[in-house]
Amino acid sequence: MNDILSLSATELGRRIKAGDISPVDAVDACLARIEATEPKLNAYVRVLADEARAAAKQAEKEIAAGQWKGPMHGVPVALKDLYDLAHVPTTASSRVRENWTPNADSAAAERLKAAGAIVLGKTHTHEFAYGIVTPTTRNPWDTERTPGGSSGGSGATVASSGAFMAMGSDTGGSIRIPAGLCGTVGLKPTFGRVSRAGITSLSWGLDHAGPLTRTVEDAATCLQVLAGHDPRDPGSGDEPVPDYSAGLHDGIKGLRVGVPTNYFFDQLDPEVEAAVRQAYEQLQALGAELVDVALPMPEQIVAVEFAILLPEASDYHRQMLRDSAHLYNDDVRVMLEAGEFVPATTYIRAQRVRNLLQQEFRKLYDKVDVIVAPTIAATAVTAGTESITWPDGSEEPLISAYTRFALPGNVTGLPALSVPCGFSSEGLPVGFQAIGRPFDEATILRLGAAYESATEWHQRRPDI
Amino acid sequence: MNDILSLSATELGRRIKAGDISPVDAVDACLARIEATEPKLNAYVRVLADEARAAAKQAEKEIAAGQWKGPMHGVPVALKDLYDLAHVPTTASSRVRENWTPNADSAAAERLKAAGAIVLGKTHTHEFAYGIVTPTTRNPWDTERTPGGSSGGSGATVASSGAFMAMGSDTGGSIRIPAGLCGTVGLKPTFGRVSRAGITSLSWGLDHAGPLTRTVEDAATCLQVLAGHDPRDPGSGDEPVPDYSAGLHDGIKGLRVGVPTNYFFDQLDPEVEAAVRQAYEQLQALGAELVDVALPMPEQIVAVEFAILLPEASDYHRQMLRDSAHLYNDDVRVMLEAGEFVPATTYIRAQRVRNLLQQEFRKLYDKVDVIVAPTIAATAVTAGTESITWPDGSEEPLISAYTRFALPGNVTGLPALSVPCGFSSEGLPVGFQAIGRPFDEATILRLGAAYESATEWHQRRPDI
Repeated sequence: MNDILSLSATELGRRIKAGDISPVDAVDACLARIEATEPKLNAYVRVLADEARAAAKQAEKEIAAGQWKGPMHGVPVALKDLYDLAHVPTTASSRVRENWTPNADSAAAERLKAAGAIVLGKTHTHEFAYGIVTPTTRNPWDTERTPGGSSGGSGATVASSGAFMAMGSDTGGSIRIPAGLCGTVGLKPTFGRVSRAGITSLSWGLDHAGPLTRTVEDAATCLQVLAGHDPRDPGSGDEPVPDYSAGLHDGIKGLRVGVPTNYFFDQLDPEVEAAVRQAYEQLQALGAELVDVALPMPEQIVAVEFAILLPEASDYHRQMLRDSAHLYNDDVRVMLEAGEFVPATTYIRAQRVRNLLQQEFRKLYDKVDVIVAPTIAATAVTAGTESITWPDGSEEPLISAYTRFALPGNVTGLPALSVPCGFSSEGLPVGFQAIGRPFDEATILRLGAAYESATEWHQRRPDI
Repeated sequence: MNDILSLSATELGRRIKAGDISPVDAVDACLARIEATEPKLNAYVRVLADEARAAAKQAEKEIAAGQWKGPMHGVPVALKDLYDLAHVPTTASSRVRENWTPNADSAAAERLKAAGAIVLGKTHTHEFAYGIVTPTTRNPWDTERTPGGSSGGSGATVASSGAFMAMGSDTGGSIRIPAGLCGTVGLKPTFGRVSRAGITSLSWGLDHAGPLTRTVEDAATCLQVLAGHDPRDPGSGDEPVPDYSAGLHDGIKGLRVGVPTNYFFDQLDPEVEAAVRQAYEQLQALGAELVDVALPMPEQIVAVEFAILLPEASDYHRQMLRDSAHLYNDDVRVMLEAGEFVPATTYIRAQRVRNLLQQEFRKLYDKVDVIVAPTIAATAVTAGTESITWPDGSEEPLISAYTRFALPGNVTGLPALSVPCGFSSEGLPVGFQAIGRPFDEATILRLGAAYESATEWHQRRPDI
């Protein structure tokens, strides 16, 4: 069983196709692993053991009958509990939603199921994804610590081999933060690349759907299934979907990699900085050309994010907040109430500045093909910690320290891939993110795959 | 000279091409006409007599030298004074802008000039286009009355033969209202069809640029010059631009014309209703099939318009309002100040409802090809009038009575063409509007041309 769990999703899919491994055994291995780790991690809102076993038997039959559906056929996956799965409650980890059961699948669930993937269960999020720690859940590298959030359950289960892939959503870093803190790969695709239909919205102008995976190749495999136009999501783009596996292993010789000279290295854990600096050297050794880049309008990024996020979230929750304010956790309720006081002119100005930011960011890609930066300024903190004290003695709220590096990706909508790139002296994962041109996920995946093939960080597993 | 002024823009262009009329004579005729009518109309902020004469001489030379630029070469036109014209102040009819002179042309001015059109001057608007009467200007059919607004100067000069065409802008009816009240054709193209780069913004989510013309053919001729993608306008669409003259005179046999059963006939001047009902009969006689349609979500249209317009206008004016509040007229200043109190959640909800409205409106076009409705609920009122009393004794603010029928076109972004269709017993023009599918200006122009060729309303000219 541990042999199965040590595989990547893509490798498992290959073995299933070849008939070497049964989807039933894969599901059983995951369920056993989840049962063993849940007391310590609490990654799942709900495990769908019976449904998953039935689906695995079905997949086994289909494949035996020659009806192979593709690289994810028979692969066990998990969904952040913001994603609708027909006839299963979508709780968004909130008491407000305890009795809310959708009749239809989210677009992602639909696509994953159509590709033959098997849904193991629904993973915990920070309530309604409105936060960056997932208070219910713990980090498999150190169960005293947070897995980050809001896709914390997805990060924890992928890192601890409970599922071969899990969906997250990223409004202000919520895929990349748990990926970075749990040591998994996390892909926030370009805004509009993956449909958000059937996902509980936090802020539709900033929400992105994407996978947390064990390897970069897995991220490419999943994106191939997830990407494409969906008229049900007003933000969905109709750019053609390339073959993400095509150039994946072609290497990065001559690739121009942007090294930020500002913003990303202003205030961060020295061990994180050291790991990312080492990654630059590694990328250079692989043939990349390092190019200094200065982020445009750095002082506007955080302001734009929150001036859009706050009122959009408050609008979405307006009726629920009036009906059930007492069922929300205090931290989320306060943010939702505060968002009602944002003037429309502030929101509008943020949208205008956002347009300028997007234009300025795109100009950077005249001289680089991808920008590489730390995913998060720090590693996983002890659960309940609300601020970080930096070496210079200054203190920063955790929400700022954890989101600061993620926000450029949300505000610009550019695709960003977080890849494990080392461990702190305390044994906690560190990641870098590769930020690409709009709809050019292929290049950031190629960079990630080249880096991964030259390093072993992604092969380490937590001892839990 | 009066022979020249009796032509349409398209006919004038043909005669200029043929060498029968000199652009210099055309410009001189217009300038003489403007000089004669301005004491009564005050349509112009600024007449550019010398520049226009010089351009006319240049056009004459070019055409003589075989460098004909197209159907508008040598045709005198006017620009609403929201449109930038390089090195000429854009006052927006406001004291706030008296000293504001752009260095570059607006996209429309650039395209018109490249097509050889000659700019005669800048026409009056309601201050910053924020209103529907153009207080400075009078209606050529009765100079005690308003030409409507905000493109009132453009309506007044086109109707009185001061210019062969004039640009307007339409955020809540501001092309169609003066076109209807002054008896000209007015085209509000699809949102995104004509660039708004270099036009002073009122509400970029609702602003549309388009021409006021003497005939429907002229509207087609102008749209051909104006339409096309412009990356400088974030709302600009990149749909291909068809040849608008191609099927223009093909008639409307079999065309399915929607006749609204609600909203447009709930409260209006009985003479306006009678004229529009007669137009339906005319359209049917021309071969159109009349189909009843019910407007979806009618109670949301006005709310959505103002919840978007108010804060967008206030955001645009934020700094000017802080620096120069005393220079604004009271009506506009009060609206700009009020817009700062709209909560972001209200604006956001309006945008969401707008999306729904757009989807519901598009469904109507499964069973019709175009919807025909009155352009305005009333005819031109005496200048200074602030409300209308209906036959049932109820009173309605003028801004509501004048914009109510225009707003569906702004909120949905669908193209709308206003066409003269009669006169009231007081001799005041009445118009209908044809509302088409997105980017299907060709069909509403074809309907308008068919109607126009069967009627003579557009040939009447005011006796001023």
